[in-house]
This record gives sequence, C-alpha cells and structure tokens, in this order.
Amino acid sequence: MSNTLMNFQDLNFLLYDILDVEKLTAYSRFNDHSRETFDATIETAYSIARDWFAPCAAKLDEHEPQFIDGKVDIIPEVSAALEQYYEAGFGSATHDYELGGMQLPFTVSVACKAIFGAANMPILSYPSLTNANANVIRNFGSEQQKQRYLAPMLEGRFMGTMALTEPQAGSSLSDIKTTALPADDGTYRLSGNKIFISGGDHELSENIIHLVLARIQGAPEGVKGLSLFIVPKILVNEDGSLGERNDVNLAGLIHKMGWRGTTSTMLNFGEKEGAVGYLVGEPNRGLLYMFQMMNEARIGVGVGAVSQGYTSYLHALDYARNRPQGRHPHEKDPTTAQLPITAHSDIKRMLLAAKSYVEGSLCLSLYGATLADTHAHGSDPVEAKRAGSLLDILTPILKSWPSKYCLEANAIAIQVHGGYGYTREYPVERFYRDNRLNPIHEGTEGIQALDLLGRKVSMQNGLPYKLLSDEIQNTVAACKSIPQLAEFADALGKSKALLDTTTQTLVAAMRDSQANLALTNATLYLHAFGHVVVAWLWLRQAHVALSGNQESTGHERRLFLKGKLSACRYFYRYELPQIDATCNLLQSMDESCFELDPDWL
Amino acid sequence: MSNTLMNFQDLNFLLYDILDVEKLTAYSRFNDHSRETFDATIETAYSIARDWFAPCAAKLDEHEPQFIDGKVDIIPEVSAALEQYYEAGFGSATHDYELGGMQLPFTVSVACKAIFGAANMPILSYPSLTNANANVIRNFGSEQQKQRYLAPMLEGRFMGTMALTEPQAGSSLSDIKTTALPADDGTYRLSGNKIFISGGDHELSENIIHLVLARIQGAPEGVKGLSLFIVPKILVNEDGSLGERNDVNLAGLIHKMGWRGTTSTMLNFGEKEGAVGYLVGEPNRGLLYMFQMMNEARIGVGVGAVSQGYTSYLHALDYARNRPQGRHPHEKDPTTAQLPITAHSDIKRMLLAAKSYVEGSLCLSLYGATLADTHAHGSDPVEAKRAGSLLDILTPILKSWPSKYCLEANAIAIQVHGGYGYTREYPVERFYRDNRLNPIHEGTEGIQALDLLGRKVSMQNGLPYKLLSDEIQNTVAACKSIPQLAEFADALGKSKALLDTTTQTLVAAMRDSQANLALTNATLYLHAFGHVVVAWLWLRQAHVALSGNQESTGHERRLFLKGKLSACRYFYRYELPQIDATCNLLQSMDESCFELDPDWL
Repeated sequence: MSNTLMNFQDLNFLLYDILDVEKLTAYSRFNDHSRETFDATIETAYSIARDWFAPCAAKLDEHEPQFIDGKVDIIPEVSAALEQYYEAGFGSATHDYELGGMQLPFTVSVACKAIFGAANMPILSYPSLTNANANVIRNFGSEQQKQRYLAPMLEGRFMGTMALTEPQAGSSLSDIKTTALPADDGTYRLSGNKIFISGGDHELSENIIHLVLARIQGAPEGVKGLSLFIVPKILVNEDGSLGERNDVNLAGLIHKMGWRGTTSTMLNFGEKEGAVGYLVGEPNRGLLYMFQMMNEARIGVGVGAVSQGYTSYLHALDYARNRPQGRHPHEKDPTTAQLPITAHSDIKRMLLAAKSYVEGSLCLSLYGATLADTHAHGSDPVEAKRAGSLLDILTPILKSWPSKYCLEANAIAIQVHGGYGYTREYPVERFYRDNRLNPIHEGTEGIQALDLLGRKVSMQNGLPYKLLSDEIQNTVAACKSIPQLAEFADALGKSKALLDTTTQTLVAAMRDSQANLALTNATLYLHAFGHVVVAWLWLRQAHVALSGNQESTGHERRLFLKGKLSACRYFYRYELPQIDATCNLLQSMDESCFELDPDWL
Repeated sequence: MSNTLMNFQDLNFLLYDILDVEKLTAYSRFNDHSRETFDATIETAYSIARDWFAPCAAKLDEHEPQFIDGKVDIIPEVSAALEQYYEAGFGSATHDYELGGMQLPFTVSVACKAIFGAANMPILSYPSLTNANANVIRNFGSEQQKQRYLAPMLEGRFMGTMALTEPQAGSSLSDIKTTALPADDGTYRLSGNKIFISGGDHELSENIIHLVLARIQGAPEGVKGLSLFIVPKILVNEDGSLGERNDVNLAGLIHKMGWRGTTSTMLNFGEKEGAVGYLVGEPNRGLLYMFQMMNEARIGVGVGAVSQGYTSYLHALDYARNRPQGRHPHEKDPTTAQLPITAHSDIKRMLLAAKSYVEGSLCLSLYGATLADTHAHGSDPVEAKRAGSLLDILTPILKSWPSKYCLEANAIAIQVHGGYGYTREYPVERFYRDNRLNPIHEGTEGIQALDLLGRKVSMQNGLPYKLLSDEIQNTVAACKSIPQLAEFADALGKSKALLDTTTQTLVAAMRDSQANLALTNATLYLHAFGHVVVAWLWLRQAHVALSGNQESTGHERRLFLKGKLSACRYFYRYELPQIDATCNLLQSMDESCFELDPDWL
C-alpha cells in the first residue's frame, strides 16, 4: 500500500511553488522559521498520523463512543494518538513561544491538519476544537482567564467545545434561549440545553472548557443579547487545580452516520443550581467573539473536507492501478490479460475529476491560510488588510467548496472501487460518510451562500470582491499570451466577467428591495463563485507547472507536472463551463422557487 | 407523521392520467383486471409495507445479518414481513394463473415495489431476486426444471440468486472462471468462487436456487463460452422434497455501507466433489439468458433507487413543514415567531429539486414498465415490437438516472434536515447509504453508458433512437402552442436537437474507428440523454396538469397540479440547461481523459 494520506509532491508544489509559503518567514512572528522547520513539522505530522491516527480509524468508526455508567467510553487508541499529537507540540503549534507554542504559520498547521484528518478526522476534531476555543480565550478573555485555561488547553490537559446550538436554535442563533443569571461574585449561573456539541463529554482530558453562548437575564432579544461564557465541566481553582464538578450534564450522545469517533452530545446546563460561567469580554458581544472561532472553524471544516476527499482519491488511484478488469472496447480477445482499470477512459475521467476537486481544494485551503497568516502577522499593514479582505470574502468558499466537491471525490472513489467500494472492507465508504457532515456543520451550505451573496460581495462597497477580481485578472493577464494556457486564460476571463455581471444584477436587485428574491438562488451563486475561484487556482498551478516542465526536469517531476496540466485542462473543459447555465439562471432572477407555495409540494 | 412511503395522489396521476395504465386491461393477459384490481393490489402493498416492512427497517440496518454457527442469522421481523408478502400473493403477482399468479401487469408490480422499497428495500430484495430468477427458469428452463423449482420459488419456500460476479470478474463477465464438468447423468459438477451474491445464504426459505454462470470444460473463452446452471443449495428430489446439501458453501458475509439487511455473500462452489448443477437451455448461451434477468434487474434497480429517493423526499417535506427555524432575510425582529423552514427559498429550491428528481424518476420507471408490459403482452404486434425497441434503448436510463438523481434527492433530504439529518435518529441517512449501491450493482453507471452509446443508440440502424425521438417530438408538437408550456416545448425541442447532433457526431466517430475516444465520455452522454428523457416526461406531466387545473377542480387536487407545474418549470430552468455544456464537450471529442497517462495522476 502506497502512502494514501498525502501526495507530498503535490503538497510541496502548492506550499512552495504556488503559494511561496517561505515568504512568511519574513514576518517577524515567523522569523525563526524556514522551509526546513516547516518540512520537519509536516514530516512529524505525517509519521504520527500514519503510526497513531490511521491504524485505529476503522476501529473507531466501528466502535463509536458509548455512554456507560455516566461516562463516555472511547477506544484507548484515541488517547494514545492524542498523547503523541500533544507531545510533538501540535496542540500549541501556532501559539506564542511564551505559551509553549512554536509560532508556526497557520498555513503549515493547515498542511498538517490535512494529513492528520486524512488519517483520522474524528480524533483530530478534539484538539482542533480545543485550539479554536483557546484562540477565543486568548483574544478576548481576561488575563485571569488566559492564565487559568490557556496553558492546560494547549497541552491537551483540558479540551474545549463551542456550545452554540440548541434544539430550537440551529441556523437561527438569534433564538438561543440559554440564560445566565449574575451571581454576587461576578460570575454567572447558566441554565439551558445545548445540542450537537462536538467533544461535549469524554474522558480524553482532565477537564472540558465549554464556550457557551447565552443570554444574560434582561439582555436584548436576538443576537444582540448574546454573551459568551467560559463554563468548565469541572471548576478550576485559583491555583489551577481541579475543584468541584460544575452543573453541566451529559443528557445523551447523538449517533451519527459518520464521524463517529467524535462524540456529539446533548448537554444540560444548570439542572440544579445553575452552571457556573465566566463572562468573556463584554456582555452582549458574544456572537462577535464566537464568530472569530466560527471563521477559524469554517476554514477548518474546509480543510477537513479536503483531507477526506484527498485520501479517498489516493485510495482510488492506488486501487485503480492495481485492479485488473476488462479490456478496451475494441479488444474482443478474451484470452489477453485484463488491463488495470486505469486504462479505461471512464475511470481516468473519474480520477481526473477527483484530482481536480481535491488538489484544487487543497490549494484553496492553503491559499486561504496564507491570507490568514498575512492578515494576522503581515509586516506590511496595507498588505495585511488586503489579505483580511480577501479572507473575508473567501471564507464561505473555503468552507463550502471543498465540502461539496471533496464529497463528490468521495463518491467517485467508491465508484472507482466498484462493489468493493461499497463494503466496509475498504475505507472509502467511511470517508464518504464522514465527509457528508461538512456541508452541514459550522453553517450549512445555504448559510454560507447567504453570507457570501447577502453580505460579503457588497461589504466595504465591494472592495473584497474587487481585490479578488484583480487577483484573478492578474493571472489571466499573465497567462493569456502563453500558447498552452491561452484557452484557459480566455475562459477564466469570460467566466469572471459572467460572474461580475451576475453579481451586479443580484446586488442591484437587493438594493431595489428585491433582496429575498435575489437571495433565493444564493446557493447556486456560491457554487458558480467557487468554480471561478478554483479555476483561477488551477490556472495558477498550470502556469507554474508549465514553466517547470522542461526537458531538464527529473522524470517523476515531469510526470507530476503533466498531471497538473491535465487536471487544469479537465477543470476548464468539464467543470467551468457549467457555470454558464447557472449564471444565466441567476441573471434571469427566476422566481420558480421564490414564489413556490409549500402547499403545492 | 404523515405517509412517507408514497404520495398516492402522484402515483395515481402517473398511472392513470399520464400513462393510462388502464389500457393494459385490453390485452388478453390482463383482461380480468381493472383499475379496481390495480388499486386494491397497491393498497394491500401499502398496508403490508407500512405495517410489516417499515417498522423493522431501522432495526435491520442496525442489526445486520450475522454468520453464526454456520448459519446466517437475520432478525425475525424479516421472515414475518416476507410471510405477509407471500401470503398476499406478491411473490407470484405477475405470473400466470396456472402458476398461482395474478397475471398482474408489471407496471402495477413496479408501483408496489416502489412502496415496499420505500419501507424496507433490503427485505424486498429477497423476493425481487427470487422473482427475476424464476422468470429465467420459466422462460428458458426445461419442463422438468420449471416443475421442480417454479412453484416453490413463487410461494417463497425457495428463494433465488443470480451468481455472476467472481473476484476477478466483475464488470468483465468474459473473465468468469467457474467451471462445470459434465457428469454421467447429464448434470454438471461446478467449482469456483462467486462474490457479492445477494441473498446467497440465509434461513429465510427452505432452499436457495442459485443461477450460476460458468464455463463447461472445453467451452470457448470469453462470454461465448458461458453457460447458465441451476445450482440449488439443497438438492431437490423428484417428488419435490429436499434431498442432500449441495456442495455450495458460504465463505463469508460481506459487510456494506448500507443495504445491510440483504446478505451479500462469498460463495464457494465445489470445495469437495463439485456442486451439482443443471444446465439451463443450451450450452454457451448463458449470458443471453442471464441478460433477461439482468434487464429486469436493471429496471428493478431503477425502481429501488426511486423508492429510496421518494421516501427521502417525503420525509424531508414532512420535516420541513414542521421545523420552525429562522425568519426571512429582511425580517430583523427576533421576537416574531420562527417560520417553518418551508418558508425559506433555499429549502424550497432543494425540495423542488428533489421533487423533480423523484417524481420524474417514478414516472420514468412506470413508463419503462408499461413498455415491458406492452412488449410482452400487447395485442398489436407492431406496437409490441415498438415498445420493445423503446425499452431496449431506455434500459440504461431506467437503471442509471434514478440511481444518480434519487441519490441526489437523498443528499438533499439530509441537508433539509440539517444536523438532525446526519444522525441515525432520522431515517434519511440510511436511505442515502442504501441508495449509494444503485449506481454500482447490476452494471455500473459506466457500463450503462457504454451500453447506451456503444450499442443501443445505433442498434437496428438507430430505430429505437428514432422511435424515442418521435415520442419526444410528439410532445413538443402538442405543447408548443400552449402559452404556459411553449417555453418548455421550445427548450425540449432544442435540447433534443442538441442531443441528436451530439449523438450523430459520436456515432460517426465510432464508425471512423475512433470508437474508444467517442466512448470516453459515454457517462456524460448518459447523463445528458437521461435529462432529455426526464424533461420530456415532465412536460407530459405538465401538459396533463395544466388541462386538469380548472377552477372546478377540488382544492387539494389544484394544489397538487400546481406542484406538478412548478416541478416541471424547475426542471426546465435549473436542470435541462446543464446539458448544453455537456453536449458541447461531447461534440468537441475532447481528449483530456482519453489521452491521459495514468502515471501523470
């Protein structure tokens, strides 16, 4: 079995040839780093993922966590894997030196995450959530809160959750009902029910720190009355030792189609005297704080989707190369040897499609991560702000495009395996089940679409859109006079122009108080937008691949670069043209769905 | 909970208003039937499905069959449900009166199958396979074989399998290795290994009759040397009593992502002295006989896919009507009540898409079934032959289109449920897992595509294509001057013309010895072809819906007919235009996949 977690030739190509991640080392935060430290970190991630995460993935899926005697029982391999993960420093990799971190660029951590996720996404979700949670406390918590919670969270002694959803408040956070009563000592007593809380209970850490959205008694209705609270499972004393059990109780585990190794919980806060909670930052600004965690989580969902799609593709490729079946349509002689199925055009088409999705998605995720790094730590404030704007508009794409198309790659991987792919003897069906969560959690696809069309494309008078547009145009300009790329540059230019006019039509309609109609097909807009962005990233890849594809290049590298050019061509001929019909529909302001009376269904 | 197995208003509309199934009663075979007998049969199917099939579906999924002490253990509810099924006569419904059957039209049995399948597809697969197997024996078996096996199979005392696939021979049947040695008594001794044999072992019946493709010693290589054998699990004595155990052994159960209630087995034939097999028909004609079973099975796969998609859609609709969440984008007041999610355009869009897929697929399946009935029993030989030709060309569509798009409806149903849809508390994730098999078994999507483009469109000098084309043109002609339908008639005419030129280009290329290149994108051709066919059926539905949508029509019926018009509009505006890009690509004879060297991946 070849390495099915990551194609390092691709990863290095994306990190260094396309995205020039080494440039990040010029930022003061990353001054101590170099390509060598990046590579060493990624290699360590790979060896832990291979040796500790991957081997128990199927077992964890078959033996999902159980609620036994008031505790959550998880197979022991999970703790062992997490121990390796934390010992190697991945729990605090991106954090400050003084917190014990490595000050690793987020981009490099995303590369590691793609590898860990490919090996075992459910395990990775525990430290990922913990890290996102810790970032909120670091940014918005008081000094005392930071001191009390950060270090144990980064070491993995404490883990974290984000507790937003309630039975009646999923996509509609304004309907959150959990309430917080002020206590005499400046703390609060929370009561309410939360649902779908990932990592909400387990014995993998000494303590669990819930970040809970709740409403202080008397606060305004809606999202403007939401505050954020730290609610530990076990109260932490001033000296950092563990105190009493807080009034947070596991009401039950939720059993899912996939992603089974991550506990999904229903939690009851305040069944007795109220759960002790500590306000983060100011009252009624909870959603703002939580959105930082959410945005990080959304990029993380995208990376997770990439990891599932990517490993699926590698498994399918490995299987296809080794599975003999059939002969070419014109070959009638049954005594000849069967061909490996990679010889069949339909299999090649499926593999190319999957490659274009997963490598395009990985490029997208890593690109988004470089924006986050530059936004947070860039030495040039103008460039930093620009990166922030690009990240703003791309966040819904970073979350949704891989969630949709890497899931498609999962489906393809099953199809390439034929009947075997449908069995639990092969892992591709598990990746398919696991990845189906990604279009749902951390804001459904529909919510991402509303965020993009209803907010992001017109924010700052359209500046982020304009910046992205310029980036795309730069690539078009750079490639249009290169014979082998002119076709693609032309197509990208036209598709971008079509997206522009579509965007203008929709934004104008929203201003003309046709907002609800204009937003009706927001999800289709999201798809078309994503296709243009990924097409752009493919052209960037082809551009570099072409210039590197010289006779002097090593054999294996030349094959790899030809693959990049093939995948780019596939994307431009098979995928990008699909947006024409979508954009035509969007521009027509079609009312079919908007005016539908549900009683007609 | 409303009825989530079938929308009877829709079923009746399709059977009687669109397809005029009552006309079948004019055929002598169905003379005793009437709409009343059809309806009564369907009602019985519904009550058994609701009371016996549906209640154990989740349990059967959670408790898949186990191989214990040499036997296959299945939860007892399965036997109980099958007892009801056979007692009500569904095991022999379409068979001759003298065999104890009802001589029910296949079309009506397909309607019943859609209902049983919605309730519990894994249970239904046992009698479905048995019936398909019995049909082969009835058509090609000797008198003695018919006498010995048919009656117990139709009563459910014996069940049947189709044993084609071997580890090295899946899509490539020419590589089947199982061998048959002639014995002195005219029987054969078979040895070989079969895999993925559904229903290959269980205790649900007294005996299991395997129909096995094998090669008589010395037979030609390839498919021309395949013969078909009856191989009972337990030998049957002349008087019909059970004799000795045959040399057929269960090597293991295969564990699948879904469809868990149907055993999928590895069977070893002839581990000892060779399994006793009885030749069906003539030597070396096995594939021909098996293809009758296969064609029936392919229509059956389509219906199964419909059933999974259809019930998913009904579940999603039911959930969406009852789930309050959020408010319209313009509504900022959080104190107002949340709306049912059917009020949100994105949800309406998803539901309309699913409706257009599942109701379009049901119409397609039932239409295909009427062709089968007319082909087999039509009183007018010309019409019967015509129906056979249409069925020939449509079989790959009947199998593949519902398998792809009803699975899409399953994905939509999960998305409409949000996080709940991803849990095993709701059935939609199970339907999604179950339905994922359908693009794989009984000829993968790629195999269907090769069958359509490589064989069906050019067979009989293109006559079947021409007949289908005429049917579509008739509908275009009938609708083009109706103001409300002119847009769709025009679009259908244009799409059909585009499909025509695409077909001509590809067929011409195949004749010019570019067959392998022309077949490269056969799967995309299959998708485009299917979309044109389903668009045609939607226009037929809209045509009838429009003429029935009078003021005098009852309120509920008027709502239903508006829904039909809405779904048709959705399909024409959102779905059909997608084939433009596909057909452009096909006509360009794109070589991206064809010329790809797998080493570049």
